[in-house]
Amino acid sequence: MAELTLTTFNWVPEPPRGLVRDLRVRWALEEAALPYRVANTPFDDRGPAHLAHQPFGQVPWLTDGDISIFETGAILLHLGERSDKLMPTDPRGRTEATKWVFAALNSVEMASLPWTMSKFMGHPTDTAAWKFVDDFLKLRLRRLEPVLGPRQWLAGSFSVADILMADVLRVVDKFDGLADSPACRAYAARATARPAFAKAHADQMAHFAAGDKARGA
Amino acid sequence: MAELTLTTFNWVPEPPRGLVRDLRVRWALEEAALPYRVANTPFDDRGPAHLAHQPFGQVPWLTDGDISIFETGAILLHLGERSDKLMPTDPRGRTEATKWVFAALNSVEMASLPWTMSKFMGHPTDTAAWKFVDDFLKLRLRRLEPVLGPRQWLAGSFSVADILMADVLRVVDKFDGLADSPACRAYAARATARPAFAKAHADQMAHFAAGDKARGA
Repeated sequence: MAELTLTTFNWVPEPPRGLVRDLRVRWALEEAALPYRVANTPFDDRGPAHLAHQPFGQVPWLTDGDISIFETGAILLHLGERSDKLMPTDPRGRTEATKWVFAALNSVEMASLPWTMSKFMGHPTDTAAWKFVDDFLKLRLRRLEPVLGPRQWLAGSFSVADILMADVLRVVDKFDGLADSPACRAYAARATARPAFAKAHADQMAHFAAGDKARGA
Repeated sequence: MAELTLTTFNWVPEPPRGLVRDLRVRWALEEAALPYRVANTPFDDRGPAHLAHQPFGQVPWLTDGDISIFETGAILLHLGERSDKLMPTDPRGRTEATKWVFAALNSVEMASLPWTMSKFMGHPTDTAAWKFVDDFLKLRLRRLEPVLGPRQWLAGSFSVADILMADVLRVVDKFDGLADSPACRAYAARATARPAFAKAHADQMAHFAAGDKARGA
């Protein structure tokens, strides 16, 4: 099998550490026990070499031999084809996992990202714009709650859909946005209690700490 | 082959007509010349029968025999497996199309939706929150512009990635958000000039006009 290489920034400032999207890919690779190496792209210079792999100047991207993939959703679907620890093997189960991959990103994160970014930026909360953002997220969480209540994982067994959904929900939880969504909160806690998440999170933190040292040198 | 059924609302108010997401699925089905029928779910009552197919109470969903799929990204990837008019047939081309499917939704629409919703709602534009939303979209369009400049379609040949990206961009264009992005604007115009888009758009408008009559009756 071709070598897998995950590329992320060499360094990021403190606030986003633990939240950089390479975590989703590390988590999947750890769940599947697929061997991989981690490569760096400079945070301070997003030049042509970066944009050739990730046209929006973000991270991560994954190379699998001579195939290069960006977008964590696309990367995780790709890895799902390489390991039955990441996707059900039957067609119906794969379709189920795929629709929840999109739902995590496009039904839930589409609503949670404006909300978490507003919190992060400290935008005022006495505006019509904030009320719209807050109502949008609450509507999605209200619909997600009865989905997650009765099931352990989204598509039968643990899958890449759970990595994405849990990663989206844990950020909302950091800003105390799951107070009225006990099933969502329990699900995020259950997913992030997995050893593969802990390993991925610790590896990301260590990676950027090493970047501090290299910059300080 | 199993019968394809696209379910959408029986009726929606005037403003979102032409923008309801079933258009993306109609467009793909028309491009592929796959036979399908259209079914209704009541706009005014999003009960258990609706939520069993689409847990967030939205439309559309697609049934392919006894498989039911929601999220337009997941539906379009599914249809891409049924027609080489919707996805390249080689593995590299399929990976390319898949990553642009996610990029359309998660890099571009993630930034454009807060922007178009703010425009739609008429939120004030003299706020830090609006500046953040506006800057976020401009950053994405600035990166997309050199991608779209030299190419006709995102993944070599026309694919489901183009349906999603063009559908996202045409809404930004409606609110005059592509004034500084000539390649994005030309791409959206090129995609929406395809007969399959025109058919899909006309069919959606006729569908909701029929809904008016049924409600009036």
